[in-house]
Amino acid sequence: MSTFAIDNIGLLVTNDPELGEGPLGVLRDVSLVLDGDRVAAVAGAGAQADARLDAGGRCVIPGFVDSHTHLVFAGDRAEEFAARMAGAPYAAGGIRSTVTATRAASIGELTALARSRRREALRAGITHVEVKSGYALDVDGERRLCEVAAGLTGDVTFLGGHLVAPEYQDRPDDYVALVCGEMLAACAPSARWIDVFCERGAFDADQSRTILTAGRGAGLGLRVHANQLGEGPGVQLAVELGAASADHCTHLSDADVEALAGSGTVATLLPATDFCTRQPYPDARRLLDAGATIALATNCNPGSSYTTAIGFCIALGVRELRMTAEEALQAATLGGAQALWRDDLGRLTPGSRADAAVLSAPSYTHIVYRPGVPLVAATIRAGQLEWLDPEGGLV
Amino acid sequence: MSTFAIDNIGLLVTNDPELGEGPLGVLRDVSLVLDGDRVAAVAGAGAQADARLDAGGRCVIPGFVDSHTHLVFAGDRAEEFAARMAGAPYAAGGIRSTVTATRAASIGELTALARSRRREALRAGITHVEVKSGYALDVDGERRLCEVAAGLTGDVTFLGGHLVAPEYQDRPDDYVALVCGEMLAACAPSARWIDVFCERGAFDADQSRTILTAGRGAGLGLRVHANQLGEGPGVQLAVELGAASADHCTHLSDADVEALAGSGTVATLLPATDFCTRQPYPDARRLLDAGATIALATNCNPGSSYTTAIGFCIALGVRELRMTAEEALQAATLGGAQALWRDDLGRLTPGSRADAAVLSAPSYTHIVYRPGVPLVAATIRAGQLEWLDPEGGLV
Repeated sequence: MSTFAIDNIGLLVTNDPELGEGPLGVLRDVSLVLDGDRVAAVAGAGAQADARLDAGGRCVIPGFVDSHTHLVFAGDRAEEFAARMAGAPYAAGGIRSTVTATRAASIGELTALARSRRREALRAGITHVEVKSGYALDVDGERRLCEVAAGLTGDVTFLGGHLVAPEYQDRPDDYVALVCGEMLAACAPSARWIDVFCERGAFDADQSRTILTAGRGAGLGLRVHANQLGEGPGVQLAVELGAASADHCTHLSDADVEALAGSGTVATLLPATDFCTRQPYPDARRLLDAGATIALATNCNPGSSYTTAIGFCIALGVRELRMTAEEALQAATLGGAQALWRDDLGRLTPGSRADAAVLSAPSYTHIVYRPGVPLVAATIRAGQLEWLDPEGGLV
Repeated sequence: MSTFAIDNIGLLVTNDPELGEGPLGVLRDVSLVLDGDRVAAVAGAGAQADARLDAGGRCVIPGFVDSHTHLVFAGDRAEEFAARMAGAPYAAGGIRSTVTATRAASIGELTALARSRRREALRAGITHVEVKSGYALDVDGERRLCEVAAGLTGDVTFLGGHLVAPEYQDRPDDYVALVCGEMLAACAPSARWIDVFCERGAFDADQSRTILTAGRGAGLGLRVHANQLGEGPGVQLAVELGAASADHCTHLSDADVEALAGSGTVATLLPATDFCTRQPYPDARRLLDAGATIALATNCNPGSSYTTAIGFCIALGVRELRMTAEEALQAATLGGAQALWRDDLGRLTPGSRADAAVLSAPSYTHIVYRPGVPLVAATIRAGQLEWLDPEGGLV
């Protein structure tokens, strides 16, 4: 194993309060030493290493963990988007047009498209992604999507329960049976998680419970798309079943907030979606003040949030969701890792996976202070330098 | 002069309705031929050229014209920003901390900082910038800022009237006299425009009129920072004096809207500022429906909008200011040119300056549809390829 040092870090976010200052565990003027794919140590200047990168006083943060994406799809929905911006309402049904395009695409096309989006995310500093299926809604197609996703990440989520397949429109319970039977059996080998879109227009509480319970029986962890378009049963169901995450959480009752705060279920907020659908934003402050754990993720998908810009999501988290820059940064790193039950990610502490982003800035505050500006000068994933901005001034 | 062709353009925005479809003058599947620093022709495939770039079906738009920036400054105000996000109000006075840092910087430092920001803007597709002085507020310092700005653009704006200099805090009229006298004389040779911050806490209507009139006397065109923090006299003054642009326009009375609509004064909207200061957004729809001309610009500055991300401003224009994607794109290209009285910029028509951006997307809608994602694969300025994303797939 070879060692790699990032020297001359002006501000290092470790996300470990025992290692540094404040909840972010901040250290100043240090080096970070990586050994193979792991963090070896935080050290002073001059630590031994086989290769080195001079951060030139810049800020280094844990790589972003994007715990909610739909990276595997074909087609785009720019026209639906433009119509929505002109006043058309957002509804779950738009998913169908992506299903048509995705079913028609070859596995080679889907793989190339997903890899290109994954590359874009890497340039945004995202070192780990969760990737969902859900745009085929038939047995072979969903298996294919899970397999393509498995080429990108260990955190694949089977989302046959994204919408009732068009062929089953008049007999949704038969579709639920298909998802829980043959489709789950085909997808479970390449998936770690199961998710369901528990929302008016998609699946109701009973259907969602049936799907999640079947997934758990197949050894998958649980995630729920919950309370995006209105209050509903999703959050309570997620908490009751011990889901890792309830995602969206835009419309919450006091009981929902209490349930999340009293549970191990992470509230995953997806503010770029609310931006792109002209929905109100979730109130992160209310959740944080109640004691809930929050993740921020991109929800990269062609319908409601076609972005890999996690920095933009963090800026929205501060401007619109009433988080501090510290809370928003932590939600997009450690929070994402918690939403995926990954204790090796989202922090820069000895033994963690060596995933880091070097910012073109002296502080993480600049992610919010400089909205829209691509600020990632370098991305290191599992100890490998995966992205280096040729003009970033790093040597 | 050598010719340069951009081939295989899937969608070309010319901003000339006589050249193509709709208000954007859109053409499909064409080549754009550049001759030296000018647009020569829009042509079919196979046009003769000395060098070529294959756009691979991507969308090509006129380079963005950022008609309101403060690129020349030292220091940053990330801490003030974080405090504001935590609830502190925005006020004009924060400018003083940038004045202190800027006065202390050498001309070499200021030049390097400004060039680095100009480079960042170029990567965002901005091919022309207006640049203001205003962070020295003394004679030699303002002259120095105008000279540094003149190294970046022909559209330099003298903004001695940014704030009353600290040395003159108790005698603002003496400061106005200095601005109109010795300072103007020192700055006018390198400036094309004069601007004043007409706002409570900065300069009132009489002081603003005095400054603008003096600038006009020195041969400068007029611009006004107007109606940012509340209703006030700025917009009416701008229209009355025939200013090229009234900038901000967040708080407008019906009379202000009518005045702008009935004038040649462009309303320059700066939505990233409203994002960063938690101000309400201006209502572009109201202005457009009344018949006013709108520019969208970044207002890149360390206090209220430290961004070069014009794409982010366009996305805000659609999400928050109620513009269509077409209106927002045009406001950030042709609108910016109009706000600078430049008829050679903001369009891709024969004879215009050869300024274009190749998007990593099939349509300009993606600037809004993919918020926060850096979508500029290549920037051409005055016929020169100034930025080429090494992973953009362009050959």
